Amino acid sequence: MGKRIGAQTVRLAHPPAVLSFAAVGGHMEGKGPLRDCFDELNEDHLWGQKTWEQGESAMQRHALGKALEKATLREADVDLVFAGDLLNQCIGSSFSLRDTNIPFYGLYGACSTMGEALSLAALMIDGGFARRAAALTSSHFCTAERQYRMPVPYGSQRTPTAQWTATAAGCCLLGGEGDGPFITCVTAGRIVDKGVTDPNNMGAAMAPAACDTLAAVFRDTNTAPADYDLIVTGDLGKLGHDIVVDLLAREGLDMTKNYDDCGLLLFDREAQDMHCGASGCGCSASVLCGYLLRGMREGRWNRVLFAPTGALLSPTSSFQGESIPGICHAVVLSNTREG
Amino acid sequence: MGKRIGAQTVRLAHPPAVLSFAAVGGHMEGKGPLRDCFDELNEDHLWGQKTWEQGESAMQRHALGKALEKATLREADVDLVFAGDLLNQCIGSSFSLRDTNIPFYGLYGACSTMGEALSLAALMIDGGFARRAAALTSSHFCTAERQYRMPVPYGSQRTPTAQWTATAAGCCLLGGEGDGPFITCVTAGRIVDKGVTDPNNMGAAMAPAACDTLAAVFRDTNTAPADYDLIVTGDLGKLGHDIVVDLLAREGLDMTKNYDDCGLLLFDREAQDMHCGASGCGCSASVLCGYLLRGMREGRWNRVLFAPTGALLSPTSSFQGESIPGICHAVVLSNTREG
Repeated sequence: MGKRIGAQTVRLAHPPAVLSFAAVGGHMEGKGPLRDCFDELNEDHLWGQKTWEQGESAMQRHALGKALEKATLREADVDLVFAGDLLNQCIGSSFSLRDTNIPFYGLYGACSTMGEALSLAALMIDGGFARRAAALTSSHFCTAERQYRMPVPYGSQRTPTAQWTATAAGCCLLGGEGDGPFITCVTAGRIVDKGVTDPNNMGAAMAPAACDTLAAVFRDTNTAPADYDLIVTGDLGKLGHDIVVDLLAREGLDMTKNYDDCGLLLFDREAQDMHCGASGCGCSASVLCGYLLRGMREGRWNRVLFAPTGALLSPTSSFQGESIPGICHAVVLSNTREG
Repeated sequence: MGKRIGAQTVRLAHPPAVLSFAAVGGHMEGKGPLRDCFDELNEDHLWGQKTWEQGESAMQRHALGKALEKATLREADVDLVFAGDLLNQCIGSSFSLRDTNIPFYGLYGACSTMGEALSLAALMIDGGFARRAAALTSSHFCTAERQYRMPVPYGSQRTPTAQWTATAAGCCLLGGEGDGPFITCVTAGRIVDKGVTDPNNMGAAMAPAACDTLAAVFRDTNTAPADYDLIVTGDLGKLGHDIVVDLLAREGLDMTKNYDDCGLLLFDREAQDMHCGASGCGCSASVLCGYLLRGMREGRWNRVLFAPTGALLSPTSSFQGESIPGICHAVVLSNTREG
C-alpha cells in the first residue's frame, strides 16, 4: 500500500491506472479551442431536461455513461464513485447518480472537486478497498450564475476579474490494472485564506491555496517544477495564474516554463470575451478528461501535475463579510508507474 | 490492508482506534436526556459570533478542540480531516477549519456525514495514508431552518412528521494505535429514492436508504441484527425508525430487539415537543461522540452498528418537484479489533 512521504503527500505503491475518461460540454465549450477534445457537445443548455439543475445532472450522467462505454464497463463494475458539484447540497451529483446502484461518497471541494475525487478514488484502489472507482463532477453556467450572482436573463455587467463558469462535466475511471496514465502521488490541500473578499475575483482568492499545495508537492516529493512536463492548476484564470507565478518565484520556484491553468485553456479569452477565463468544477474536470489525459495518451506529456483549486465561499458567507477560503488538491499523473 | 468482503463493505485489516471524541450542543440539547454526555453546552445560539453560520463554525472548532485536548494531541498531529455540513457550500466546515493547517477533504453527505467521514478516515488509516484522521460535522437549528424552510422568527407551524435540527457538533479522532473502540467494517451506501416528495417527512424519505445499507452490512459481513449489541441509524426519527423495522421484517430481519435511532435518542420527543425527533448532521455526530462511544468505553455495548442517514435534497430540487434521494453510510464499531 501507498506510503506517506511528507506532511500532505502519499506516494502510491501500486499506482492506479486511468481506465477511461470522458468530457461533455455546452455551447461555449464547443466554440472554444478544446472543442475537438469533448466526447459530447450539446447546444441545448437544458440537456433535454426542464430545468438547468436537471440539465447539469444529465451532463454528469452523460459523462459517466461515456466513460463506462469507452472502458467497456458497466455500472456494476464500478465499486465506488466520488462526486460533487457547486450546487447547494450538491444536487448535480446526487440526482445524476440516483438511478445508478454504485456506492457513492459525496464530496464538496468547490472547483477542486476533480482533484479531491481523483485523490480519494486513487487511494481507495491502492488500499485495496475498491477495484475500480470513478471521479465525477460538473458545473453549469446558468445554475452557477443564478446561485452565486444573478439570474442570467438579468444580463448583469461582469467585472474585469470575473471568470465564466464552464457548462461541462468530466468523469475519470480508475482501476488497479491498465495501461495508464497512472496516478503516482496524491497531495491533500489545506485551507488558505489571505483575506480576499471580492467574489468576482476568484483567481486572487484561490492562488495562495494553489501555491501552498504546489509547494507541498515539490517539498514532499523532492521535485522541482522542471521535473514535470506540464503543471496545471484548476481554474485560477489569468490573474490567479500570474499570481501563482509571482508568489512561487519568491520561493525560488520557476513556474514560467511549463505552467498552465485549466481556466486559460478551455476558452479563447479574447475571441470569446471571457475576461479572466473559465471556472467551475466542470472546467478542470473537462480539461483533464478531454485535453490533458488525451494528450498524455498521445505522448505529448509524460508527467503532469494536476492541481485544481476551489473557493470555499457561499453567497451567505460573502453577504456576512467573510473573506474567501481557498483549497487545492493535487495529483501527479504519469505515463509510467514509476513516474 | 483492508479487504473487500462484499459489494459495499470493507473489513479493515488493522482496525483503526477511536483516540478521542467530543460533542458540543446548544440549548435544546442541554434540556434533553443526553445532556450529561456533552463535553460542552452553550445557551448562546450564536456561540459568541455575529451570525448563526459563524456560530455553527465555532461549534465545529470547539468539538475539534475538545477532541484534540482529550487525546492530548495538537492539530499538527492530525494528518487529515474529513468534514462537511448542511449549509450551502458547506461553509460550516470550511470556515471552522480555515485557521487550522490540517489537510482537509470536504464532504457532502447531508445528515450521513459522520458516517461518511468516519468511513473515509478509517480507510485512510488502514491504508497507511494517514496516521491520525478526524471526522467532524455539525448542524444548527437556526441556519438549517432559514436555509431549508423558513427563518426561525416567522414562527411557522411544523407538521407532525417534522424533525428538529440539532444544534450540535461532533468530532471523532481515529488513529492506528489505541485502546478503542475500533472501526472494524465500513459499508458505503447507495442512493435510494422511493419517490417521497415531502421535505417535512425526512424519515420516510431516508428509511429505504437505511434499509438498503443495513441489509448490505448483514449480507456482506454474514451477520444478523442479533449479532450487534446495538444498531443505530442516523436521524430517521419515529416514523423512519418504524418504517425500517417494517421493511426489514419483510426481508426476515428482526430489528425489534436492539435497534434505535439518533433522532429518537437526542431529545425527549414528548416533553420537548419534538414531533418525530431530532435531525441534522450534528444529531448523529453528537449522539455518537457523546453517548454511544462513551457507552462503549464503559462496556455498555461491545459491538455497535452505526448507520447515519442523509437526505440529498435541496430547496431548489423540492421546488422543482423532485423526490428526495436518501443515502446511508455505515461503520461497525467494536471494543475488540476482531469484533
